[in-house]
Amino acid sequence: MLADFRWKLRVYYEDTDAGGVVFYANYLKFFERARTEWLRAHGVEQQALRVSDGVMFVVASTALDYLRPARLDDELEISVVVERMGRASVDFMQTAWRRDGGESVAISRGKIRVGCVRDHDFSPCAIPDHVRARIAGPAT
Amino acid sequence: MLADFRWKLRVYYEDTDAGGVVFYANYLKFFERARTEWLRAHGVEQQALRVSDGVMFVVASTALDYLRPARLDDELEISVVVERMGRASVDFMQTAWRRDGGESVAISRGKIRVGCVRDHDFSPCAIPDHVRARIAGPAT
Amino acid sequence: MLADFRWKLRVYYEDTDAGGVVFYANYLKFFERARTEWLRAHGVEQQALRVSDGVMFVVASTALDYLRPARLDDELEISVVVERMGRASVDFMQTAWRRDGGESVAISRGKIRVGCVRDHDFSPCAIPDHVRARIAGPAT
Amino acid sequence: MLADFRWKLRVYYEDTDAGGVVFYANYLKFFERARTEWLRAHGVEQQALRVSDGVMFVVASTALDYLRPARLDDELEISVVVERMGRASVDFMQTAWRRDGGESVAISRGKIRVGCVRDHDFSPCAIPDHVRARIAGPAT
Repeated sequence: MLADFRWKLRVYYEDTDAGGVVFYANYLKFFERARTEWLRAHGVEQQALRVSDGVMFVVASTALDYLRPARLDDELEISVVVERMGRASVDFMQTAWRRDGGESVAISRGKIRVGCVRDHDFSPCAIPDHVRARIAGPAT
Repeated sequence: MLADFRWKLRVYYEDTDAGGVVFYANYLKFFERARTEWLRAHGVEQQALRVSDGVMFVVASTALDYLRPARLDDELEISVVVERMGRASVDFMQTAWRRDGGESVAISRGKIRVGCVRDHDFSPCAIPDHVRARIAGPAT
Repeated sequence: MLADFRWKLRVYYEDTDAGGVVFYANYLKFFERARTEWLRAHGVEQQALRVSDGVMFVVASTALDYLRPARLDDELEISVVVERMGRASVDFMQTAWRRDGGESVAISRGKIRVGCVRDHDFSPCAIPDHVRARIAGPAT
Repeated sequence: MLADFRWKLRVYYEDTDAGGVVFYANYLKFFERARTEWLRAHGVEQQALRVSDGVMFVVASTALDYLRPARLDDELEISVVVERMGRASVDFMQTAWRRDGGESVAISRGKIRVGCVRDHDFSPCAIPDHVRARIAGPAT
């Protein structure tokens, strides 16, 4: 259950900075792309969820280590692991990996806490049951 | 009236790319910051306008030339000139300038067309009279 | 030759703004991702090119129309068409498409001029012959 | 010494997302702008430092809580406090504040670890003595 999910992406110029490497804040974007695709693989579309249930997922906290530089044209794999599923929030452990020769090297890693809120006032609320059921099931 | 307005900003790591220079798409952000401050100097706040009048300004087209590279820590001045004020849109000519010794050098320059739309469906609408009156007056 | 190339991408939260739609400057990023993948499909990697030949492609000018809003979770296709191949620059016509029912609707469209420069001083230079030969050939 | 430094900035469309609020990853950008200006107030320019000493400051880890939403046109103040000054790294505690009526409300807060590295290979190195002396002194 809640197995390791991986999402591939490329590093483009937009992702880099004058240090010649990926700008660290962009790992938060990469991690969110992977969580979004993880949700989609479980049958949850965030825009549709907002319309149907009036709720959104928002990021409550992030704690990342930037371990090694990644560069233009690198192909990264972002993993998504659910560490804890609460009533109104989910904790993820995510890693950006790069293949160097035969092995996967961790480029950046961290914990992301996502909370469920009502979209009109950002007040916390329980994750809808149909969402909970889907994300507890297998990715498709 | 509608005099040349200038807004200063700094180049940070977030603005640069692995070429060591400002990423070209970011000049669109710089130009928008200056237009926003130009509006504010004329007494128009966009968030308040949306609440009071149900309208937003959206960018309809942009045509920019990237003339010279700008780098980390450069201080730029973004100028705002109104070229044409229509019923439902405004055409701006904007330039990013950098002081090199005694003279101002153009780094990027272009035309931006901004349209007024209803915020619930993005349909074009006339610029509200009170906004038109303010932006035709002096900046404060 | 130089046939229409298309690259798919998703709209994530990072791409949107408080208007509820894709922030217009991000179409420049989407168009660049597609050009980068078009280059890669022709066997050209920009980071490798910089190391091997000491040259980079830089964007010299962009002229875009933002035709319709795109939203979170939309899937877009970015097309790449070469309009003119010069000695030291290439002109592209690019469009962001979205499928609405059975048809493709243009969301944003424009011309991008890319120039070849020496990477140590950004001076213009001829596109290397081996690059020219590859991009005149078929994508793989 | 190392007193609380504050840097003001505005929220523009570029900073927001379709949730109608500041996109969380952008607080990392805001915090970096404030650290950069804190460095500059102590007489240290990063681009010049790279040329003179061959070293760069890179972000090694970030741990942020996103406490309340900020919106378009909000004016934020970013504070910079040095928590620990090591031989090759500095730990900062930073907060984004917004004035609501008479009081300052914390919008986002966190710790940022910045490391000093050689710019040609990103290997850790001691912060140069002249930099250490400057940042231990008063801001100007």
